Amino acid sequence: MKNIFVKTSLAVVFASAFFGSCRPKDTADAVSGDAAQKVYVAPGKYDEFYNFVSGGFSGQMSVYALPSARLLRVVPIFSVDPQSGYGYSEESKPMLNTSHGFVPWDDQHHLDMSQTNGEVDGRWIFANANNTPRIARVDLKTFKTVEIIELPNSAGNHSSPFITENTEYVVAGTRFSVPPDNSNGDVPINTYKENFKGYLSFVKVGKEGQMDIAFQIETPGVNWDLSHAGKGKSHGWFFFSCYNTEQANTLLEVNASQKDKDFIMAVNWKKAEEYIKAGKGKKIAAKYVHNTWDEKTHSAKSEMRNEVLVLDSKALKDICYMIPCPKSPHGCDVDPTGEFIVGSGKLAALIPVFSFDKMVKAIANKQFDGNYDGIPVIKYEAALHGEVKKPGLGPLHTEFDGRGNAYTTFFVSSEVVKWDIKTLKILDRHPTYYSPGHLMIPGGDSRKPFGKYMVVYNKITKDRYLPTGPELAQSAQLFDISGDKMKLLLDYPTIGEPHYAQAAPADLIRNNGQLKFYKIEENHNPFVTKGEKEAKVVRKGNRIDVYMTSIRSHFASDNIEGIKVGDEVYFHVTNLEQDWDVPHGFAIKGADNAELLIMPGETATLKWLPKKVGIYPFYCTDFCSALHQEMQGYVRVSPVGSTVPLTFSLGTNMPAK
Amino acid sequence: MKNIFVKTSLAVVFASAFFGSCRPKDTADAVSGDAAQKVYVAPGKYDEFYNFVSGGFSGQMSVYALPSARLLRVVPIFSVDPQSGYGYSEESKPMLNTSHGFVPWDDQHHLDMSQTNGEVDGRWIFANANNTPRIARVDLKTFKTVEIIELPNSAGNHSSPFITENTEYVVAGTRFSVPPDNSNGDVPINTYKENFKGYLSFVKVGKEGQMDIAFQIETPGVNWDLSHAGKGKSHGWFFFSCYNTEQANTLLEVNASQKDKDFIMAVNWKKAEEYIKAGKGKKIAAKYVHNTWDEKTHSAKSEMRNEVLVLDSKALKDICYMIPCPKSPHGCDVDPTGEFIVGSGKLAALIPVFSFDKMVKAIANKQFDGNYDGIPVIKYEAALHGEVKKPGLGPLHTEFDGRGNAYTTFFVSSEVVKWDIKTLKILDRHPTYYSPGHLMIPGGDSRKPFGKYMVVYNKITKDRYLPTGPELAQSAQLFDISGDKMKLLLDYPTIGEPHYAQAAPADLIRNNGQLKFYKIEENHNPFVTKGEKEAKVVRKGNRIDVYMTSIRSHFASDNIEGIKVGDEVYFHVTNLEQDWDVPHGFAIKGADNAELLIMPGETATLKWLPKKVGIYPFYCTDFCSALHQEMQGYVRVSPVGSTVPLTFSLGTNMPAK
Repeated sequence: MKNIFVKTSLAVVFASAFFGSCRPKDTADAVSGDAAQKVYVAPGKYDEFYNFVSGGFSGQMSVYALPSARLLRVVPIFSVDPQSGYGYSEESKPMLNTSHGFVPWDDQHHLDMSQTNGEVDGRWIFANANNTPRIARVDLKTFKTVEIIELPNSAGNHSSPFITENTEYVVAGTRFSVPPDNSNGDVPINTYKENFKGYLSFVKVGKEGQMDIAFQIETPGVNWDLSHAGKGKSHGWFFFSCYNTEQANTLLEVNASQKDKDFIMAVNWKKAEEYIKAGKGKKIAAKYVHNTWDEKTHSAKSEMRNEVLVLDSKALKDICYMIPCPKSPHGCDVDPTGEFIVGSGKLAALIPVFSFDKMVKAIANKQFDGNYDGIPVIKYEAALHGEVKKPGLGPLHTEFDGRGNAYTTFFVSSEVVKWDIKTLKILDRHPTYYSPGHLMIPGGDSRKPFGKYMVVYNKITKDRYLPTGPELAQSAQLFDISGDKMKLLLDYPTIGEPHYAQAAPADLIRNNGQLKFYKIEENHNPFVTKGEKEAKVVRKGNRIDVYMTSIRSHFASDNIEGIKVGDEVYFHVTNLEQDWDVPHGFAIKGADNAELLIMPGETATLKWLPKKVGIYPFYCTDFCSALHQEMQGYVRVSPVGSTVPLTFSLGTNMPAK
Repeated sequence: MKNIFVKTSLAVVFASAFFGSCRPKDTADAVSGDAAQKVYVAPGKYDEFYNFVSGGFSGQMSVYALPSARLLRVVPIFSVDPQSGYGYSEESKPMLNTSHGFVPWDDQHHLDMSQTNGEVDGRWIFANANNTPRIARVDLKTFKTVEIIELPNSAGNHSSPFITENTEYVVAGTRFSVPPDNSNGDVPINTYKENFKGYLSFVKVGKEGQMDIAFQIETPGVNWDLSHAGKGKSHGWFFFSCYNTEQANTLLEVNASQKDKDFIMAVNWKKAEEYIKAGKGKKIAAKYVHNTWDEKTHSAKSEMRNEVLVLDSKALKDICYMIPCPKSPHGCDVDPTGEFIVGSGKLAALIPVFSFDKMVKAIANKQFDGNYDGIPVIKYEAALHGEVKKPGLGPLHTEFDGRGNAYTTFFVSSEVVKWDIKTLKILDRHPTYYSPGHLMIPGGDSRKPFGKYMVVYNKITKDRYLPTGPELAQSAQLFDISGDKMKLLLDYPTIGEPHYAQAAPADLIRNNGQLKFYKIEENHNPFVTKGEKEAKVVRKGNRIDVYMTSIRSHFASDNIEGIKVGDEVYFHVTNLEQDWDVPHGFAIKGADNAELLIMPGETATLKWLPKKVGIYPFYCTDFCSALHQEMQGYVRVSPVGSTVPLTFSLGTNMPAK
């Protein structure tokens, strides 16, 4: 045991070395003189870029505008959002269903935007859930989560949701290998090597964006970490980094850091498709859900799937190849030409850059160093374009500017380093505050980066802003990368923990059919109320359906009687407004539920279980007009067995005294 | 009915008139040339002010820094926060308990900071919950919600949590009158006039901040809306605005806008205290909870209270007086001297300013216009200092700069207007985008405003930023008010819906004992694990307690076996770190719960109900070191009745094969 803890404490020192000294003196000096003007977007003016930032442990996606770094909106994806009613309304609950039941939270690490010909196209953005493995799709016309698919045989969906250059596939690889779903899962944890497997999922994306697991590849049990698709010349291949090829199952901090090299695995998915066509896939039982949002009914449904098609990486010798990569690789990034694959070993002090052409040749020439659990291992030098020497300590992620330059974050030495992809020469370096994880250049993982700005997402904040107690927001830093040297423009705190991010020019999304409201005549929610005259309250046994409308500034109905303790009440509220930015809210006192935030033309349903006799006010929670405060109503709840008749009214004071 | 809808549609036109035309041309022109420099806070530099902003329908509080408008943190108060585990950890769940059970959401409208001698003192900030009436207290040493008290006899706690100048009381008034809790609540809604009552709560604040309802005042059934305490000469009085003195119970948009004037009620709370001492209060039965957070045990408890002391405003003739106020008053603001009370009638085209001295004289001289349901009504002119003429349309709220000026927002005419408190002359006006609600000047409702900046919180956003689908964030605008004319500096989107806000100079809070981490030796959580050697897993029947530690970068234990389907598992995770900004997270696959985010030195507990046989990975969700990815473990779940022994280990691979 002693040895273990020596190593452990060394790792702690290693990680925290940077904080032993005071904060660097040049913090503010490093900013260029015109930074203020460069990040200032005057009131009423628009920013240049949309920036979509993963929320990490928030489970959501933040939408920023660059260069102002203003937070435009938080889009709920994997966590419930009491603010909007996401996960609380009857319509949205199925979105968060899983094979484990309703899950109110997840850990959202990476985003990837849909691409056409390798360029970001602004249609959808995909998001991974790390804890309970899933992929979500957000529609960028509505900024709404419209689809979530669960991933069987997986745990810790980390190397996801990276996509191919025409959005053919979005992928997912298990970070924590586990026994496959159709095996006996009740095995000792220390039988990891025998019983635990890795799975890589290739999820097909249809023309309208709909997702379907085309196939999974079973691999040895390791920790699959990050990935990126080939592009251009390497289109048809996918690259996945892994660590823990030691196959340790305890104290990975020490035990998964034993080998000098782990791997990047190159997957020939076009070849995999051929094997599928040839019937080499095996259907295995696996339960996972597919949740879809329907914009016509304004509601979600959740369907259980029962099997998945699996390819065996051992048996099919020519779809998977291992490329050795030093020191527990993390980031796995492909340059805009598709020729260079950058592996970032998180304990390394160099960056290996692999050549796609060399890799293909090495495979053809069988330049292998044996195999890893049946998968050929390409000789390191045979695939290597070269190494970036002395770049910094602890490289994590690399993005590209489209002008032949790469930018890599260094967690341990707290800096971002610019280097030339071909010559591997270091061109510039800049300190970051502190310990950067991901970084993002608009279009920076596509064939066409836009290359004007770079954002570095730091893991440690400490003294960068006014303190807020023990808990601090993570900090981002915006750089101008239009010149030879990187210029720090701005520090700003973020939501949740930002991991990977995406960005696109504003017009690409703004002019791509942004929806401003839902047309009431196209609302096919089964409980829609299309006009106030249709407002009604219906009892069936102990179920009460309230068909309600909201329009500035009243609800119809606003006096409801005849509800009894023990009833199950469904408020179906239709927002009759037909104008942009006139949502109404709905809340009722004492509800063990959230509010509803109902967009114009939409119907949403709040379930309410009245528990005590009394008068319960409900009201509009979203300031809507000068008479918003007056937008309220009352529900009378009578005892079990009461004979108070069911009545509903607006403005008439109808119910008898 | 016809007449009603003519009026209604007029109201809609009235409210939306501004949007018939295009956006104003001078949007950007209105900005002063040096605005960019004025709002720019260079990387590593600190802002001048903390700005605490209510989250409205988010239920939380946002902490901004001014002038940069950077969002430092969102502090969870009334809504669950899957991101931090607030409302999901066993320790925090009691904070959201109410007399209705666990409530996951509320609508947080106003914040008021603790004061000493009428000046903001940076100790605590109070927050109201509007839907299920409560007041919360946030400790500004930790930025944590440490106390929540429920308000009986109330619905829609809107005129809250305003405080007196030495934080003697924090108040709450019911926006929706309802039948009192000890009455038969099963009454027809149209018996509003007979059966519905208003209640104003005076909550005593102790030296350590602890809250206790000292007394409530029963009033006629109206809609109590906003309030502010007297200060200086008027210390000892509280002023509450109300609307719906028509006592309508349906279509308030029309029916509560019938009378030309409603009221501001002046409450002599020092006199009320005398009556209490004289035994004039009546204890009545009422169930409400009092939830407190204990920083020693890192856990909350929820206690039910059973009675409340009530004073009758009718019977006690000299504690309440009505001052007529035109057109459905909303904002009720008292100037720094305590002499002037500003009423904002939301349908008005003038602003009445009342004089405290004149009011006192009018009371002494009995210059009354009869009474309202037993409460004397002071003659309008007798209390009036004067009216601000033609200030704009739809005044809502007023703040003060400490230099004799008042600033009022106008919802309908979308502008903010600066005027002289004494002369009532208009000094400046500036358009806002669009439809402002609250506004905030640092210290602006205290005796000592800081007066450099003003933020206007708008209700409508529309085209101010890049679009984000049907849902848009609300927009704030920062002004420089240091000169004669207001200068617009910046537009920025916000979290939830910002209503009232507070601000204080950065040093007041920063240098006031900010807590950076919890000392592990002071951790008295009953399930704390103070060192790795104490890590253990204990079974009692089907309850499993996992005493777990986290430190960079492993959990102890990280291999756990012997858990069975049907067990109730409690992971008690103690973060052993003793440094600032090194939280660890904890999540386990498939949990129908959130993650935990555990601050250094803290213990937090996640309840988990394993439902299926298998291997469940858990991991750290908050990037903590270069070996963060390795910070994981596994739990083996065996079938009901399994004989797999309970084992736990780290690094030893102990469990037998």
